[in-house]
Amino acid sequence: MSKKTVINIGLCGFGTVGQGVWKHLSRTRAELESRLGVGLEIRSIAVRNPRRKRTVKIPVRKLAADALAIANDPKIDIVCELMGGTDLAREITLTALQAGKVVVSANKALICAHGAEIFATARKHGGHFFFEASVAGGVPIIKALREGLVANRFPHIYGILNGTCNYILTQMEERDEAYASVLAEAKDLGYAEADEALDVQGWDAAHKAAVLAWLAHGIWVHPDQMIVEGIERITPADFKNATTLGFGIKLLAIITRDFATNELSVRVHPTLLPEGNVIANVSGVFNAISVTGDVVGTTLYIGKGAGQDATASAVISDIADAVALLRNGKGVHLTSEVVLPTGGHVKLAPLEHIRGRYYLRLTVKDEPGVLAQVASVMAKHHVSIASVIQSSAEAAGTASLVLTTHESHERAMRGTLRQLSRLRSVVDQPLLLRISDFNA
Amino acid sequence: MSKKTVINIGLCGFGTVGQGVWKHLSRTRAELESRLGVGLEIRSIAVRNPRRKRTVKIPVRKLAADALAIANDPKIDIVCELMGGTDLAREITLTALQAGKVVVSANKALICAHGAEIFATARKHGGHFFFEASVAGGVPIIKALREGLVANRFPHIYGILNGTCNYILTQMEERDEAYASVLAEAKDLGYAEADEALDVQGWDAAHKAAVLAWLAHGIWVHPDQMIVEGIERITPADFKNATTLGFGIKLLAIITRDFATNELSVRVHPTLLPEGNVIANVSGVFNAISVTGDVVGTTLYIGKGAGQDATASAVISDIADAVALLRNGKGVHLTSEVVLPTGGHVKLAPLEHIRGRYYLRLTVKDEPGVLAQVASVMAKHHVSIASVIQSSAEAAGTASLVLTTHESHERAMRGTLRQLSRLRSVVDQPLLLRISDFNA
Repeated sequence: MSKKTVINIGLCGFGTVGQGVWKHLSRTRAELESRLGVGLEIRSIAVRNPRRKRTVKIPVRKLAADALAIANDPKIDIVCELMGGTDLAREITLTALQAGKVVVSANKALICAHGAEIFATARKHGGHFFFEASVAGGVPIIKALREGLVANRFPHIYGILNGTCNYILTQMEERDEAYASVLAEAKDLGYAEADEALDVQGWDAAHKAAVLAWLAHGIWVHPDQMIVEGIERITPADFKNATTLGFGIKLLAIITRDFATNELSVRVHPTLLPEGNVIANVSGVFNAISVTGDVVGTTLYIGKGAGQDATASAVISDIADAVALLRNGKGVHLTSEVVLPTGGHVKLAPLEHIRGRYYLRLTVKDEPGVLAQVASVMAKHHVSIASVIQSSAEAAGTASLVLTTHESHERAMRGTLRQLSRLRSVVDQPLLLRISDFNA
Repeated sequence: MSKKTVINIGLCGFGTVGQGVWKHLSRTRAELESRLGVGLEIRSIAVRNPRRKRTVKIPVRKLAADALAIANDPKIDIVCELMGGTDLAREITLTALQAGKVVVSANKALICAHGAEIFATARKHGGHFFFEASVAGGVPIIKALREGLVANRFPHIYGILNGTCNYILTQMEERDEAYASVLAEAKDLGYAEADEALDVQGWDAAHKAAVLAWLAHGIWVHPDQMIVEGIERITPADFKNATTLGFGIKLLAIITRDFATNELSVRVHPTLLPEGNVIANVSGVFNAISVTGDVVGTTLYIGKGAGQDATASAVISDIADAVALLRNGKGVHLTSEVVLPTGGHVKLAPLEHIRGRYYLRLTVKDEPGVLAQVASVMAKHHVSIASVIQSSAEAAGTASLVLTTHESHERAMRGTLRQLSRLRSVVDQPLLLRISDFNA
């Protein structure tokens, strides 16, 4: 392959990320070309409305309305699917892979929903699928897990995978402000989407956790097989209680595998983390991932998890990897799907094997005997109480009861919650948070 | 290449790291082979004394006394140089590269001294040189810089690159203990070498900084072109003063490039870091590196920087990358030297362009007029004083004077130090620490 070879790139989608890729690829093109030894050209850009005014100026001849045509265009080597969604995005991805192209994607929802099909299609047709931008923005966590830590099995991977939630939680804690008002402000600042549900209910983090779990353990765990809980019911009082107990609160994705039993659990929920833990101190829109390998020990990766520039950085690194792959011929490549661990014998852990300590906040009627009732429900489920903080709640005649438990498990806590919420003296739906003992 | 292909590996050196590679490769071989699609065999191990008893049991037929024979053996595909030193290690590395082999190395001193020759030899003969284990142990920082962050230029890279120094500093601070006694203990625990000079004087970190600077900026900066200062003169009192000022003290390697002037500075010295900085809170034998890219922003990488297992994890990841390279044919590969940025126009920053704030500790005679003398020396060099802490020093009749400065530069501080140490009232050699404003 001569130095004059040009690799042609098609962008499907030209929103925030697409414009970022255009901007940074244009700026660094000369240097990248010299480093990679090829020419790089963004040949075609599919946009929903070609006539729309954009801050990024691109030649009109490059604009196309039909993303599928880019996936089918024999002149295009690398297709960047940056449109989001799971319908047209899936069609474009599969079409490009069937044509033996390299697809670069930032679309965790797509990978989570159709990953098995996408990788099977790539394998069958000699296409390749790169997705560094799908988790933790510009932090090269996919590359670290798949290549840098290839000697390892992973008993624990956990971290902050959603910058929006981390921004909201950080602001709530620092300013002692309620969830709703911080959320409204985050929307104004563009840190939260107009429809925030995917972020604040934990689904976006669950999509990313599914990608990491697959990379580390070779099986697809869908969000409906995970415990997924969001941050909407956390209050400033929870932060104060957590501080009293020596913890911070983070929305964590946690992927744990017991290699003795081969049981895997993947979950996303607000978690009390010891104050000294580095990840407990990662604030704002940053993501942070702790990866414990059986050989390397614990390694940490921290950086901006989203945004135009960080995501473009990851997409461009995938383009560079794709160029190396194309230059070497489309043989089997380390960064393709064949080097994943085989998840054959892994099974999902039943709820009674997902163990930990818990933080339980109840709003109860301020009357005698309530603590006794609560304690007896917990005792019935063999949940042992470690500490109790009682304080007056906002509504008159009610009190806030915060209990922490000794080690118990998800099954027992579900039973406990169900029965507690049926008590006449428990006013509101109980809030359950998990307590983590991760130190790093 | 059929599934039955066997990749033959030779280990030159069978000390801590070599035995770690043997141990972990043996344990994970079946899984790695299935992921990589080849057989992996450690065919030959060069040891200094084949008859020595070892805790790791290896077949006698694999033992060899001649490391050069391994580098020359046409049956060996991958040579792991794990012996250290820069003489025989250089010969083995060059010989293997001349034979077109892949060399995997953890030897930062070798790379720092002979990197240009090594990479030129690899280029000329179609060999390849992998060195993930040379910086930050098992943390895949080389891969992150070279591949994951390929879209970026790097205005700042800094971090803790020597776990021994970080262990000593952490213990001194936590236990309010003197350098010498913590060092002695670190030797007993195996955290420090019998000859500690390379670590505590900053040279080991400087070797690693040279590797990172080359990766990021494409030029070789030798330690004698850097500012390199060690941790030997830091006292528990310095930690107390730093705490008073809102800082921790870390031995940092700092690589800064000004892209407007193309000036690069690489230095290793104890540094006051703001208490809230994540890296200021990384304690013990861990390494931590902050990489600021112009596209991705700041990303952080933390993990164990040394030790048998962490280093073996990195060596095995290089072996896996080498296998992918060998399976794809020895064409030009993204992870080889050709994708480095070209450092053509980069030049080293002169001392007057290396700017920052400073912490200066003087032991002075406890008599009138001393502060005036010190202040007038500083004024003469246009160094502006920001704060003064005076306390009694250990020796009778002396006082400890700690001054912090407003922004100044290395040239001015050298002049200041020289003149201060000539003052009759300054009893001991002044101690200069740098103050960093890095927040992440």
